[in-house]
Amino acid sequence: MTVHPKTIALVGKHNAAGILESMSELAAFLYEAGHTVVIEAETAQHLQIDQFTVMSVAEIGKSADAAIVIGGDGTMLGIARQLAPYNIPLIGINQGRLGFITDIPRDRMLPVLTDMLDGKYVSERRSLLQAIVVREGDQIFSGVAFNDIVVARGAGSGMVELRVDVDTHFMYNQRSDGLIISTPTGSTAYALSAGGPLLHPSLQGIVMVPIAPHALSNRPIVLPDSSEIVIEIAAGRDISVNFDMQTFASLQHGDKIIVRRSAHNVTFLHPQDWNYYHTLREKLHWNEYPTVSGALN
Amino acid sequence: MTVHPKTIALVGKHNAAGILESMSELAAFLYEAGHTVVIEAETAQHLQIDQFTVMSVAEIGKSADAAIVIGGDGTMLGIARQLAPYNIPLIGINQGRLGFITDIPRDRMLPVLTDMLDGKYVSERRSLLQAIVVREGDQIFSGVAFNDIVVARGAGSGMVELRVDVDTHFMYNQRSDGLIISTPTGSTAYALSAGGPLLHPSLQGIVMVPIAPHALSNRPIVLPDSSEIVIEIAAGRDISVNFDMQTFASLQHGDKIIVRRSAHNVTFLHPQDWNYYHTLREKLHWNEYPTVSGALN
Amino acid sequence: MTVHPKTIALVGKHNAAGILESMSELAAFLYEAGHTVVIEAETAQHLQIDQFTVMSVAEIGKSADAAIVIGGDGTMLGIARQLAPYNIPLIGINQGRLGFITDIPRDRMLPVLTDMLDGKYVSERRSLLQAIVVREGDQIFSGVAFNDIVVARGAGSGMVELRVDVDTHFMYNQRSDGLIISTPTGSTAYALSAGGPLLHPSLQGIVMVPIAPHALSNRPIVLPDSSEIVIEIAAGRDISVNFDMQTFASLQHGDKIIVRRSAHNVTFLHPQDWNYYHTLREKLHWNEYPTVSGALN
Amino acid sequence: MTVHPKTIALVGKHNAAGILESMSELAAFLYEAGHTVVIEAETAQHLQIDQFTVMSVAEIGKSADAAIVIGGDGTMLGIARQLAPYNIPLIGINQGRLGFITDIPRDRMLPVLTDMLDGKYVSERRSLLQAIVVREGDQIFSGVAFNDIVVARGAGSGMVELRVDVDTHFMYNQRSDGLIISTPTGSTAYALSAGGPLLHPSLQGIVMVPIAPHALSNRPIVLPDSSEIVIEIAAGRDISVNFDMQTFASLQHGDKIIVRRSAHNVTFLHPQDWNYYHTLREKLHWNEYPTVSGALN
Repeated sequence: MTVHPKTIALVGKHNAAGILESMSELAAFLYEAGHTVVIEAETAQHLQIDQFTVMSVAEIGKSADAAIVIGGDGTMLGIARQLAPYNIPLIGINQGRLGFITDIPRDRMLPVLTDMLDGKYVSERRSLLQAIVVREGDQIFSGVAFNDIVVARGAGSGMVELRVDVDTHFMYNQRSDGLIISTPTGSTAYALSAGGPLLHPSLQGIVMVPIAPHALSNRPIVLPDSSEIVIEIAAGRDISVNFDMQTFASLQHGDKIIVRRSAHNVTFLHPQDWNYYHTLREKLHWNEYPTVSGALN
Repeated sequence: MTVHPKTIALVGKHNAAGILESMSELAAFLYEAGHTVVIEAETAQHLQIDQFTVMSVAEIGKSADAAIVIGGDGTMLGIARQLAPYNIPLIGINQGRLGFITDIPRDRMLPVLTDMLDGKYVSERRSLLQAIVVREGDQIFSGVAFNDIVVARGAGSGMVELRVDVDTHFMYNQRSDGLIISTPTGSTAYALSAGGPLLHPSLQGIVMVPIAPHALSNRPIVLPDSSEIVIEIAAGRDISVNFDMQTFASLQHGDKIIVRRSAHNVTFLHPQDWNYYHTLREKLHWNEYPTVSGALN
Repeated sequence: MTVHPKTIALVGKHNAAGILESMSELAAFLYEAGHTVVIEAETAQHLQIDQFTVMSVAEIGKSADAAIVIGGDGTMLGIARQLAPYNIPLIGINQGRLGFITDIPRDRMLPVLTDMLDGKYVSERRSLLQAIVVREGDQIFSGVAFNDIVVARGAGSGMVELRVDVDTHFMYNQRSDGLIISTPTGSTAYALSAGGPLLHPSLQGIVMVPIAPHALSNRPIVLPDSSEIVIEIAAGRDISVNFDMQTFASLQHGDKIIVRRSAHNVTFLHPQDWNYYHTLREKLHWNEYPTVSGALN
Repeated sequence: MTVHPKTIALVGKHNAAGILESMSELAAFLYEAGHTVVIEAETAQHLQIDQFTVMSVAEIGKSADAAIVIGGDGTMLGIARQLAPYNIPLIGINQGRLGFITDIPRDRMLPVLTDMLDGKYVSERRSLLQAIVVREGDQIFSGVAFNDIVVARGAGSGMVELRVDVDTHFMYNQRSDGLIISTPTGSTAYALSAGGPLLHPSLQGIVMVPIAPHALSNRPIVLPDSSEIVIEIAAGRDISVNFDMQTFASLQHGDKIIVRRSAHNVTFLHPQDWNYYHTLREKLHWNEYPTVSGALN
């Protein structure tokens, strides 16, 4: 990504304050620098930007050299899933509090991007999950997740019972509120709230985290990301599966969710001084140099 | 409860195998021993028992000296909630695996009950919770719980945000899958699965356990049972409140759930050798005398 | 504490920067206001303050109307344990980051104390624990704890096995790194790090928190503070018991530690706008109004 | 391992009841089957077996086709560490309760081994960790671990503060009782007790689990097993590092422990119907088909 000029696609969170200003400033900056700027179609429509070429996500995937996303981690999750098949690198600008994957502050975006477009960046590859839902032998749904695939019960419906097989071996019948299958990227999201471990992004692993499991020994388990995980709905009502909390399917008794690592990856570009542990420290409030003197007092 | 004869009410789980035989045997035994036997109305109808007086739960509450429940902990929860206002003691017979509160095995029920009706028992008082739901100033629902009152999101609806005040002091805005307010009795049920501590039944406390909380420091908190807890729905969709997972109400943004200890208690009678820690050891598989020699290996 | 003048004792952390200045300023202020100022003996010696009456802790306990502690929570723990038998109220000034129990910032101490000495304060009573160690029938050690009593193994010595009885009932044989018995005050200290729940200060409870227990179902348990807990060293080497991490005793196989609530309490005085939940929110970084939009991303 | 005859080494736990009988029976069986039987030197000395060739562990490593270990997981850990450089496969016979890695019951050892020596087995490779301790630039200690490398404080010494760097990036300063660096094999041992996740044996990962960390967000983290982890003693007294709880070194302020995956692996042979999840279900008491009907009641 070091040879000028390039085709840069811009994608933005539609309903956030100040996005239009940021995007206009960014587009102008890139145009001035000699790049070809394209705007993602929904973004263009919502923000009413009409000075640049407008492209669908698929067109961006085929034509752009990189995509810059302005928004939070949720915005990035959505676009990253869609662009995954096209293998174009993504850069994240955050208007508010920095995210795990949108790590360039809006007020420093121009100097940081100047360096990055000049080849001074850290590249990082993240894995995704894919799943199909099979009902009585037929595939009735499929989806891709960047954070996690979650099978869970509804609010008024007691526990679910899930039969889990991994690589054709029976693992267990689990009774719980549900089960989270998470990528390393998702390990800092819902999986963490439910008691899961952190997974370094370059670990070739998938973590399964039960939500409020009946059996106290049903602990989170980290599997190689070559594993095929089959979850069968053994009991329970009002159960659904979701992908990154963004797409959903209702499930019935007997349905099987077959989860694998996706064939696609997502590549993020970070500023050259970016460091995974720095992000963790910031986001998880790890004290770099704690100074208090007694336990938690 | 040591003076003969007494009026003993029988209540049974309707749809479990072998209940009719157990109940018939028990009724005959009590009748032979000179007691007045009454059968709870729904139990009588489902099991088609017609040799004894049939009473509603309210009539049992007013007339009986004790109620014997045949079933599991779930059956006991349901009847205990209904009988709570009447202050009559409860005895639990379990057909299957012993429960936390149904602790007399069916195959030893006659000799055990002989002793207990002779005054050889341990009496134990358990607290309950009550809550009302207030919408725009009006009470729209009320309920009583023996285990727990749970405010939780639906399967396809992201996190809830709950504002919690205790004794008119703001505690926090919590983002999570939901919140469990549990009695000591309920501390071995859903609250335990969600990461809560065990509460001894005689502790005058209530435990609040967040379910998969966003903030890792939102830990379970044990409050005096004199506390008034107000939970307000600050954000989220498809939220409901349930009482012992047996009664439910749908909630809207702005609804307040006001939880207090109930004015009523439930009294359980146990065999004289009953011991709370023995039950915990059995149910939680604590090894009385572990013999393995190295960590968990 | 609303009638002037009073006898106010001052106690300070010896080795912290700026304590002398704070203490001199505070003493002058109290003296000007007409109070009798006394300085705790060790504090006076270390800080070389000689303008005021010097008293031992025991003399302070008998003579003073209140004690003001300048330092962190650790300093307060130490002095509170010693003053507990005398029932005089304590006020905590913190030079650095506010603590759980030293909650008046040094730079606001004069106006805050003016109000408090004028009767505008919140009073709060905290419980303590006491324990004796019995070896072959003889008491070989005793101590008092404000936070916790901890039985734990040494660094190079594998697991301990502890037999625990509560109120003469066998609870379990526990294999772990050790066991924490904590007051509500201590529930925000080591017990929290080891996975224990928060206990509201006015809960009449004690929490037992196992440290890295072998059995995953050995969860924290909250007992009424009327309980007598007996811990017997069943196996393990290099084991010791400590009180608030400040006093220690080495233990042998067969030793019993008998823990009860202390007959004494400690009374803290807080500024009138003090609120327990506010302190929790500050110290545990609970977000009052979280604004991010997706899980932990 | 399918061509007869072979050289089979036998190793046994010295001080367990019945080992001599098991070993004698096993040796005779192997001898009858035409194999060359050798006995590990310490085993031979303790059990006073003198009918077979006696070899040191190093000689076994160079000469034997396989080693059979009779004992528990602890015995296997010890011998596996020593044989790791020689790459000979290991088979575990357990006299008592089956272990995670000693999975052949003593009373079925002969028919099971008959099949295995006939080539009917499952082979499985496990990783190890190695570490060196560096003091003022000099390596003062080194060790290998099959389960875990643990840096921890002594019983009477407050918290440790550890500075952790991974692949030359600063991760955090951690205040805790200590830190466990565990292989997938060790993830079911001490790391699990301290709150760590399970790691599938074929995951190319290492898990770091803090023990009772001061910061609640210091969660277990799983790293690729290509990582180099450097732990520096930043503060604390009476700190040591141990390898599988079997070898120890005392540490000082400023010491660095540098942990990497070992260049060696250990190969286990299991009976053909062996299955990792089956072992987990047995050891962790996961219910294959739970039947109770309500939460944990």
